[in-house]
Amino acid sequence: MGFLRLASVCAVVASLGVCSAAGAAERPLVIGSQGSFFVGGEVKAVTPPPGASALQRAGDITVNQMYVQYQIPAGPARRLPVVMVHGCCLSSKTWETTPDGRMGWNEYFLRKDRPVYLADQVSRARSGFDPSVMAAVKAGTTPPSALPNIISATHQLSWVLFRFGSSYPNAYADEQFPVQAADELYKQMIPDLNAQLPTPNPTLTNMAALARQLKGAILMGHSESGFFPEQAALIDPTDIRGLITIEAQCPANLTAQQIATLAKIPTLVMFGDHLSDAPTMIVNWQTTFEVCNAFVEKVKAAGGDAQMMHLPKMGLRGNSHMLMQDKNNLQVADLILAWIDQHAERKAH
Amino acid sequence: MGFLRLASVCAVVASLGVCSAAGAAERPLVIGSQGSFFVGGEVKAVTPPPGASALQRAGDITVNQMYVQYQIPAGPARRLPVVMVHGCCLSSKTWETTPDGRMGWNEYFLRKDRPVYLADQVSRARSGFDPSVMAAVKAGTTPPSALPNIISATHQLSWVLFRFGSSYPNAYADEQFPVQAADELYKQMIPDLNAQLPTPNPTLTNMAALARQLKGAILMGHSESGFFPEQAALIDPTDIRGLITIEAQCPANLTAQQIATLAKIPTLVMFGDHLSDAPTMIVNWQTTFEVCNAFVEKVKAAGGDAQMMHLPKMGLRGNSHMLMQDKNNLQVADLILAWIDQHAERKAH
Repeated sequence: MGFLRLASVCAVVASLGVCSAAGAAERPLVIGSQGSFFVGGEVKAVTPPPGASALQRAGDITVNQMYVQYQIPAGPARRLPVVMVHGCCLSSKTWETTPDGRMGWNEYFLRKDRPVYLADQVSRARSGFDPSVMAAVKAGTTPPSALPNIISATHQLSWVLFRFGSSYPNAYADEQFPVQAADELYKQMIPDLNAQLPTPNPTLTNMAALARQLKGAILMGHSESGFFPEQAALIDPTDIRGLITIEAQCPANLTAQQIATLAKIPTLVMFGDHLSDAPTMIVNWQTTFEVCNAFVEKVKAAGGDAQMMHLPKMGLRGNSHMLMQDKNNLQVADLILAWIDQHAERKAH
Repeated sequence: MGFLRLASVCAVVASLGVCSAAGAAERPLVIGSQGSFFVGGEVKAVTPPPGASALQRAGDITVNQMYVQYQIPAGPARRLPVVMVHGCCLSSKTWETTPDGRMGWNEYFLRKDRPVYLADQVSRARSGFDPSVMAAVKAGTTPPSALPNIISATHQLSWVLFRFGSSYPNAYADEQFPVQAADELYKQMIPDLNAQLPTPNPTLTNMAALARQLKGAILMGHSESGFFPEQAALIDPTDIRGLITIEAQCPANLTAQQIATLAKIPTLVMFGDHLSDAPTMIVNWQTTFEVCNAFVEKVKAAGGDAQMMHLPKMGLRGNSHMLMQDKNNLQVADLILAWIDQHAERKAH
């Protein structure tokens, strides 16, 4: 018995009945270096609540650290890295192999010679979370109301909110999300404990710190984290060379000074399709889009290089909220990569 | 401004004052394919507790899925993949870049032409967890006592339990763990919710299923998951081609039939140093070692190919519980790689 390489890659998505021939035929990836590390983190003293397990003892734990996984292409080129930060109830899996087994943006950007850094938000996935409140509630020393509002979106909610269709499980006629593989997306959806984070959210501070560590980086956020790049820049813009905001809620109340700070950094905002005809479930997409349009105009009015890419206007129709996983995800990536070349990389040199 | 590739790799570990020249000079990695996917997962209907946030609605969520990230070396060789599963209060970060910035086992095994699969245990990291109990306790519909005992080891406990030294923060004279970078290990330590998992632990079922998907795999576990490979084989041994158990607690009460099942699969058990002189904190390492020795002898008596590697007996001294991160971690890896070649790969063909 031996290990059939290509067969096995297909095997893992066999339950979906799909195995991209294009993916299997992809040329080998040549990676200069890869690895993972943490940004930030603070030491916190904890005392064991009554009745705690033997493993729970008085001492210190580390909280608010951000896990980052990176790959840097081989070759002599010095290119700005892209830091990708996922949205609500998701992890960095967002950017990897799509639910139907195609190449994710992490690998595609790398193949286009961009160093890629994937960050799990603080309190999510490999970044861990602070369990102190849960231990105290279990022990009875803190009331249950102190527990955070943990968000874990249901399949039914995600379907409409992510604009796969106007009602579950019906898809829009031109839907680009691979809805036959939606079950694989649901496996990516994990509990979101951001409600228990301090202010400012340590993910923002850590994103700004990461840009400094890298001596220049483009920050990209999506959905919940869509405006995180700008928020990180408002904490410390020093080494942030580009802001990419995908399908986000933009604040309407930024001050002139804040706009002036952001206007020094090239900014791209992107939205998919079905904004005006999506039913409002939590989010009114058309209004959200309009507020982001107004943000872009304010940055431009302040002399900034800001651009709104509304995909239907660029000729790409049917894109969902999860456009990095849509069937045309690499076409969407090409728009971003071209924007980086023309707006962020050029200015960085 | 440009992106200095090698400089940036060093920058991320700059706070430790270390940057491996050897690491920076490493030859490029050539990867045939890489990606991530989930194994397992079940749909669970949830109803929103009173007072839940707008995002919490009646519907379905997915639980008990296992996130797996893989890299397969380029080249025509058909080689058995290695599935690495981390221990308590940790994630797959365990196997990646060491706390002091050296190469982890995931990359080293890959450079030695082994396909590598990293799995986050169910209810941990990118696999997510079931938040239903927490939501119900917060809403007051379930008593606080129903919350799981969440384990998050303190720095002080880890130091002794992981055998960095006999008391915090003093290290053994010959300690191999890079104790100057212990703060970076602490950032890897994240809350462990295994106490709320059903029986059998879905990670075990998913590990056996993964071996089948891969049409043959070697399973490796460490510490909490150290005996998971054998437990997975007791659920379904079909495509499990090797069992690697590192620094684990072996059960003493396996039946003759269970031993007979395991005896069909090559088995390696490994322990580091300072077993007999480590103070007992949660675990008595010498007793633990002896029980595993007895397990190995039982498998051998049943005709199995089982081996105990006690590193001091192999000439490697000072290894900690986190031997995949120790300063001599690649030497330790070489012992495992040679064992795989001689005991698992050979039999698999």
